[in-house]
Amino acid sequence: MKFIKTILTLVLTVSFAQLSFADSALVFQSDFGDKDGAVSAMKGVAVGVDKRLPIYDLTHEVPTYNVWEASYRLHQSSSYWPVGTVFVSVVDPGVGTKRKSVVLKTKAGYYFVTPDNGTLTMVAEHQGISEVREIDEKVNRLAGSGQSYTFHGRDVYAYTGAKLAAGVITFEQVGPKLPNEVIAIDYQHASVKDGVISGNIPILDPQFGNVWTNIHQDKLAEAGIKLNDTVCVKVQNKGKTVLDTQLPYIASFGEVAVGEPLVYVNSLLNVSIAFNQANFAKAHNIASGAAWEVEFKQCN
Amino acid sequence: MKFIKTILTLVLTVSFAQLSFADSALVFQSDFGDKDGAVSAMKGVAVGVDKRLPIYDLTHEVPTYNVWEASYRLHQSSSYWPVGTVFVSVVDPGVGTKRKSVVLKTKAGYYFVTPDNGTLTMVAEHQGISEVREIDEKVNRLAGSGQSYTFHGRDVYAYTGAKLAAGVITFEQVGPKLPNEVIAIDYQHASVKDGVISGNIPILDPQFGNVWTNIHQDKLAEAGIKLNDTVCVKVQNKGKTVLDTQLPYIASFGEVAVGEPLVYVNSLLNVSIAFNQANFAKAHNIASGAAWEVEFKQCN
Amino acid sequence: MKFIKTILTLVLTVSFAQLSFADSALVFQSDFGDKDGAVSAMKGVAVGVDKRLPIYDLTHEVPTYNVWEASYRLHQSSSYWPVGTVFVSVVDPGVGTKRKSVVLKTKAGYYFVTPDNGTLTMVAEHQGISEVREIDEKVNRLAGSGQSYTFHGRDVYAYTGAKLAAGVITFEQVGPKLPNEVIAIDYQHASVKDGVISGNIPILDPQFGNVWTNIHQDKLAEAGIKLNDTVCVKVQNKGKTVLDTQLPYIASFGEVAVGEPLVYVNSLLNVSIAFNQANFAKAHNIASGAAWEVEFKQCN
Repeated sequence: MKFIKTILTLVLTVSFAQLSFADSALVFQSDFGDKDGAVSAMKGVAVGVDKRLPIYDLTHEVPTYNVWEASYRLHQSSSYWPVGTVFVSVVDPGVGTKRKSVVLKTKAGYYFVTPDNGTLTMVAEHQGISEVREIDEKVNRLAGSGQSYTFHGRDVYAYTGAKLAAGVITFEQVGPKLPNEVIAIDYQHASVKDGVISGNIPILDPQFGNVWTNIHQDKLAEAGIKLNDTVCVKVQNKGKTVLDTQLPYIASFGEVAVGEPLVYVNSLLNVSIAFNQANFAKAHNIASGAAWEVEFKQCN
Repeated sequence: MKFIKTILTLVLTVSFAQLSFADSALVFQSDFGDKDGAVSAMKGVAVGVDKRLPIYDLTHEVPTYNVWEASYRLHQSSSYWPVGTVFVSVVDPGVGTKRKSVVLKTKAGYYFVTPDNGTLTMVAEHQGISEVREIDEKVNRLAGSGQSYTFHGRDVYAYTGAKLAAGVITFEQVGPKLPNEVIAIDYQHASVKDGVISGNIPILDPQFGNVWTNIHQDKLAEAGIKLNDTVCVKVQNKGKTVLDTQLPYIASFGEVAVGEPLVYVNSLLNVSIAFNQANFAKAHNIASGAAWEVEFKQCN
Repeated sequence: MKFIKTILTLVLTVSFAQLSFADSALVFQSDFGDKDGAVSAMKGVAVGVDKRLPIYDLTHEVPTYNVWEASYRLHQSSSYWPVGTVFVSVVDPGVGTKRKSVVLKTKAGYYFVTPDNGTLTMVAEHQGISEVREIDEKVNRLAGSGQSYTFHGRDVYAYTGAKLAAGVITFEQVGPKLPNEVIAIDYQHASVKDGVISGNIPILDPQFGNVWTNIHQDKLAEAGIKLNDTVCVKVQNKGKTVLDTQLPYIASFGEVAVGEPLVYVNSLLNVSIAFNQANFAKAHNIASGAAWEVEFKQCN
């Protein structure tokens, strides 16, 4: 009887351990592209940590060395994942230099494993910093990788992210706690003054050529702009006007004819500009980045 | 003893529940490309529904807004997946308009979650319509997404597809039953008359430049064409002849020299045209679509 | 009591079977690209074998028909996966000819399912051949696929790889044992003579434009070259000099200014050439392959 109870306890433990399925998802992002074996090597390391780990990709097509876009893509999609998800982002032009390797835990409950080189700008701002820890490479580095100085994505970030997602280490075991701050890229925030909304074009929707701004839809109301109003739009690059036009503010693409322009609110609830089924950015030679400014106001 | 029996029943239930692993695979397709965070946001939503869900991609490189190619890719690959697999296809130029959001269950036993805009043309025809249901967005829409009008792929389709694949909802719980029909794109079917096979070039094999037709291999026999015969091939675009030549009908690429042309039967058992290891479509300026017609007959 | 023991045994078996999670990872590589449904069809076949199978991609962007690069990508990443991982590689210009369909088990403990057309060159050399078996298509071919002659990736390789990874068949059940040899592509190995290291450029790091060689870092020491030395570098294509310059040998990119060149040791511990954050290969018109030779020596 005692034997049976012992066995039962064991079986129950095993069964519920499985049901709970403690693993968090592990999501990779990089600027490695999809033509070589680098992403696969990172995933192999992660599977080696725990072969049941659910592994996904955000994108590996961040423009090379573009830390800002890496930051934006994490912001764009991370909050749609379950709380506890671990993101490994490797856009690392400073590999082998003294930039810190960190894990950020946000107040929203997500983990970001990355070089601290600006990649954390947007998620730190939007999700809040709960705690930052520096990766202790003495314990959180792939065994036998000590001679390699150019692929921390594989040897340090994938390995540490996988251990964290699999519950092999706790967040505390990542390494020593750092001050609650990260390297942040300076950028112009959106504002409204005298009915004019000023903002920035942080990024494009590259597949469709839609122009995204950093202006939340609440600013439209603040400036007195309502759905179906005509909006005066000005786009400037380094102070030079690239576009100065009037566009209708519409709820969704299909409400204007194919090829017609519109101002709309995108999937992150930010004001954006597009053609219905054509490439607005290309047609008007608009790109993205700190030098690209945009203004919206109600037309008189 | 009674206690032990209760425990045992519980343990058995848990164990077999795990073994049965009720989840179906969830397969995503879109025209979003792989450069931004849109696909990742959809997957995050799906993982949020059930983190054990096996999630895959068909392709995210459907040419933008190209509902026909979306339809063809679903047809090309869905039947190679296990019965019960749930496909989410988001090529949605009419997002925000009155096109219906539906789930098609085919007679072959697959589920397709998509805007009903022509995307279902080929699978409805080839697999048969078992039942169509309209997604009830009051219950099958991501919580908190009500202010977004431009990304139903994330807020409605990924969410509903994941719930269906995970068994969180039944097919009936998708929403109200619609008539057994879908929006179908009209296209020219293949036929044989007086030994001449007429058909269409629905799509290319874009990586290799092979030209695929919608002519099943059975039509070759019907027209009296046998393996290793010389075939007279004519390709027309909007009635203008683009190619008029004689080609050997061969079982597989490797049977002709590198750079040599052949007529062969492709992986869907349709008649196709290619060079061995070179790009036939590019060499002869052949594209695909409703305007591209093709004829095959035995040469005299 | 007897009944309870029987039940307990059953439950324990089930529980531990689940815990052991016998499946190996299945990793796909091909030259199919990501624009059509071919990769998805292969994965569907694999999921049909066992829906719990953990399935990953190495790359599907091997240049079309390029068996050498297929061989290199397998070498580059396979050893970072857990022992027992099954790789399915389909770069198969000879599909439908008499090239053998095989599974190689390496001494390192990995399985490679592929046409034996040179794809196994690098892993056979670096990991050693444990055993080669020819796939018996009478038992290891997708049911109903017998009329298709052009997509063995789906009908034979994915199907066999999935059965092997899932433990549905043993390695012995793949088919008859072949001699311990594979088709190997001849290439120039690296050597040191009179302080001059000679080698080859087998492949590029295509996303970044870095030039990789087949010269292990040990050869640097053998030639008397130490970190921070200036190195004389000569690159030749078919015997014609393309580049003849002096570069610093540096540990990692970030130690030189942006846009500056360096010799470094890459993630496979091979000597490589790059700019920090710019495309060296494009700037100097350097490509890869058997005709590309490179020399390094300490500058006087």
